[in-house]
Amino acid sequence: MTDRVEFRVDPQTYRHWHVDIDGTVATVAMDVAEDGGIVAGYELKLNSYDLGVDIELYDIVQRLRFEHPEVRAVVMTSAKDKIFCAGANIRMLAGSTHSWKVNFCKFTNETRNGIEDATANSGQTWIAAVNGTAAGGGYELALACEQILLVDDNSSAVSLPEVPLLGVLPGTGGLTRVIDKRKVRKDRADVFATRAEGVRGRQAVEWKLVDEVVPKRVWAETVAERAAQAAAGSTRPDGQGIVLRPLTPDGYSYRHVTAELDRERGLVEITVSGPEGGVPESLDRVHELGDEFWPLAMTRELDDLILRLRANERELGTWIIRTRGDVEDALAFERVIEAHSRDDWLVNEIRHYFKRVLKRLDVTSRSLVALIEPGSCFAGALLELALACDRQYMSDGSLQDSAGNAEQLDEAQIMLSASNFGVFPMSNGLSRLESRFYGDEDHVAKLRQETDRRIEAREAVDLGLVTDAPDDIDWEDEIRIMLEERASLSPDALTGMEANHRFVGPETMESRIFSRLTAWQNWIFVRPNASGPEGALRRYGTGRKAEFDRERV
Amino acid sequence: MTDRVEFRVDPQTYRHWHVDIDGTVATVAMDVAEDGGIVAGYELKLNSYDLGVDIELYDIVQRLRFEHPEVRAVVMTSAKDKIFCAGANIRMLAGSTHSWKVNFCKFTNETRNGIEDATANSGQTWIAAVNGTAAGGGYELALACEQILLVDDNSSAVSLPEVPLLGVLPGTGGLTRVIDKRKVRKDRADVFATRAEGVRGRQAVEWKLVDEVVPKRVWAETVAERAAQAAAGSTRPDGQGIVLRPLTPDGYSYRHVTAELDRERGLVEITVSGPEGGVPESLDRVHELGDEFWPLAMTRELDDLILRLRANERELGTWIIRTRGDVEDALAFERVIEAHSRDDWLVNEIRHYFKRVLKRLDVTSRSLVALIEPGSCFAGALLELALACDRQYMSDGSLQDSAGNAEQLDEAQIMLSASNFGVFPMSNGLSRLESRFYGDEDHVAKLRQETDRRIEAREAVDLGLVTDAPDDIDWEDEIRIMLEERASLSPDALTGMEANHRFVGPETMESRIFSRLTAWQNWIFVRPNASGPEGALRRYGTGRKAEFDRERV
Repeated sequence: MTDRVEFRVDPQTYRHWHVDIDGTVATVAMDVAEDGGIVAGYELKLNSYDLGVDIELYDIVQRLRFEHPEVRAVVMTSAKDKIFCAGANIRMLAGSTHSWKVNFCKFTNETRNGIEDATANSGQTWIAAVNGTAAGGGYELALACEQILLVDDNSSAVSLPEVPLLGVLPGTGGLTRVIDKRKVRKDRADVFATRAEGVRGRQAVEWKLVDEVVPKRVWAETVAERAAQAAAGSTRPDGQGIVLRPLTPDGYSYRHVTAELDRERGLVEITVSGPEGGVPESLDRVHELGDEFWPLAMTRELDDLILRLRANERELGTWIIRTRGDVEDALAFERVIEAHSRDDWLVNEIRHYFKRVLKRLDVTSRSLVALIEPGSCFAGALLELALACDRQYMSDGSLQDSAGNAEQLDEAQIMLSASNFGVFPMSNGLSRLESRFYGDEDHVAKLRQETDRRIEAREAVDLGLVTDAPDDIDWEDEIRIMLEERASLSPDALTGMEANHRFVGPETMESRIFSRLTAWQNWIFVRPNASGPEGALRRYGTGRKAEFDRERV
Repeated sequence: MTDRVEFRVDPQTYRHWHVDIDGTVATVAMDVAEDGGIVAGYELKLNSYDLGVDIELYDIVQRLRFEHPEVRAVVMTSAKDKIFCAGANIRMLAGSTHSWKVNFCKFTNETRNGIEDATANSGQTWIAAVNGTAAGGGYELALACEQILLVDDNSSAVSLPEVPLLGVLPGTGGLTRVIDKRKVRKDRADVFATRAEGVRGRQAVEWKLVDEVVPKRVWAETVAERAAQAAAGSTRPDGQGIVLRPLTPDGYSYRHVTAELDRERGLVEITVSGPEGGVPESLDRVHELGDEFWPLAMTRELDDLILRLRANERELGTWIIRTRGDVEDALAFERVIEAHSRDDWLVNEIRHYFKRVLKRLDVTSRSLVALIEPGSCFAGALLELALACDRQYMSDGSLQDSAGNAEQLDEAQIMLSASNFGVFPMSNGLSRLESRFYGDEDHVAKLRQETDRRIEAREAVDLGLVTDAPDDIDWEDEIRIMLEERASLSPDALTGMEANHRFVGPETMESRIFSRLTAWQNWIFVRPNASGPEGALRRYGTGRKAEFDRERV
């Protein structure tokens, strides 16, 4: 399970999905290749999935949004007979390390949230056409869709059999979406999640587990009808898609984003470069640039980097985030986003994509530290990168070289813009500034008056925008000591602490999935009742029953 | 750590606290007896606490509310020099089983919530007079108070050193209260929770960690002044306290509440008996009855039972809850509560006490099943017991004996009352009916029209108030099979599942402490980085540094 994972895939070589676009409706059919596991050691029977299957799904969701603006409804279904999807592959789970399981669940959760985000913000409504049994993660896939149709064939059911069969939770949002999104009564949710065979037919509708059961003979036309209805209700404007061409990083170096690994110190140093050259003079030019348009190019690179580092560099516990470039240039680009995200589909997509990548940072179990130095461009949208971090350090004065000569750089500066006030909400529904100054609306209002001007270190401290602003003479030592201290702490305690600190105030279904549900699942994953040699996860399919420590805690 | 724990204590024999009442102000001074650990194996140095210390604190909070209506402000301070409280005893934690740690944290969390509840709902404002260093759980005690005063003596600090010193979280609400209640900025919260020595003096005020730092020379008078101000602002009405006399159960049998243990089947069968005899004809009579007044007597017994079962009967994973008595009698009693909880301090206390005991059920990691049978009295407040359960089964028809003769009992009935619509809110701020029918306000409104009349099984099913209503002929078999199935499932998976299902919709600081914070802490507690032989918790105080698996998950 320690092979390196890459997240870049090409539609030409999908192994597990068929995508068929017919006018305004896309059909995404799951057809998992049994021998197509991302690592060796298991067969992906019955449309069960592993990380590789989900990486393709993520790619599909992305490409539908960027390459197919004409698509206004997406039908997710199965290309296999009698089975919609059997959920995450059990042998894969049973044979995985704890960190693999946790990372796998995090990515699959993010992909399902992305499906909901496409429905909510791209005018692409996902509909689950459950044409066979949907078990566990299979039903959780359907739950991420806006509507669930279930075929009424006297055998196809929806189920969450994790608790009875595996001794773990339906951890990809299942428990949460059943009660919070589908609004199933908790006692029925309890019965449902402990009944391995699930629920089908009329009862599934009555319990709100699905929206509709559809007789087999009218299945295809009903699905088509529901998709057409959803498409007709979409407000997605017309447009010509762009092409997301392959990213071609050299190691962890991309065009606008680079990462250097410091294994000795357990660090990754990430640098995001601001735009080079002028801002496109028109929307036409933005579309012409397509995936070369800096905000999109940078976001794609950052997304890929985050995913690769999370999966492959698990011992590098602290990520340092820097930017490099001109503050004004960065802001000029983002004004394009601000001006057009309401009326141009592509600009809207870029906005929501950057929002989602920021959310990935929010749930990344690494200590995140922003270093704001001379020559950086933490302005507006890029300032959100710093605000997503656990701490922000800003150098006060020009950095000097070892001979004491100040470099030829302006002092470090940051800049607020309209982007910092709700354009990129966190999963708790608040902007990062609202979270930072939770309960102090007056201060947030005051900051609104401070947009679009350069703010230097001392003022940034006074405005509460940075944690500290060491003098340039002390900068290197202070940062070094801070990073050493961080690296000495328990990785698990840091993960728990950061997960608690990063989300203040209100919750949403999404924040609850990452906080409550995920935390319980992680706990269960390390308990012997699930993962011990006699645990349910390990014994599944062996014909031997799990042996439980009956103690409740 | 397997000694049986009892929660009944007597103020005459407190070992760890001094309570001093002067007019409207009570002073609660922590003075932990080093040799007073509830189990052997550690010394309670530096005002560190274990479960026994907290059991006394809980008793103090209760008695101040019931026995001392004249008290309007409570000062929590330390009777020791230079140390306020060092938090939970580390050797106790390091030597405890996982389930002991989890149960310990749950109870201490409930007690701190109870302090906040007294401030919010009893007009007894708790003030932390931190007259020495408050570390970890010591600072968390202060965080539960409405105001925090810190002595400014150049050494006393507040700190949360769990992450840097022990590799675990400040799990008794610390992380959550710092950001959600005190509204400390997340980057400062991060610095604070990783700085073992904590923060003192002006910085502690600037960071909002305390409300005030007070010079030593004016300490006593300032504390007295703040307490007097709080007392003056209290709306608590005058009154004469009642006495909470010792409960004297025979095993798990109390006067109004009994529990039978079935170790073979992993069950506890709890029966709550409704009131005997008439309803008091006046408020005076209620006060005269005092702790004999049925709602209070029953609540105290149930509270004690829940605590003892949770601590001592950890392998009995399912609790069956029954009631016995007359529906009308039960409702008549609760009308006294309803009529007077706004104007009579004692009735108000009883209401909030029953609310808190229901909340204990909500966070109890046992499967809770209500059995509604002929002769039961699930009406109004007692119906909340059933609604707190994961499932509700109601027998349809009169139960028959083995010869087929119907017993001489009415059919099972339940009754809604005003109590079911917000009198006993859950920690998410919703009533249990609002949680049950989350998102369906129309149905809740409809149920409001159905109060104060007998509802039999079929109608209860139709109204969504019970999970199922087996026919009396099938009753015994169906219940038996259901309980057997439940007992066969993984106790950990059930705990996680129930913790997710029981709280739908909005969150509060309180719900977040039990969901997100507790779940992460439980995960960390079972990880080798904390509890393994080389983990931080086990190595603390040995002079050897912990060795961490550096992998982030």
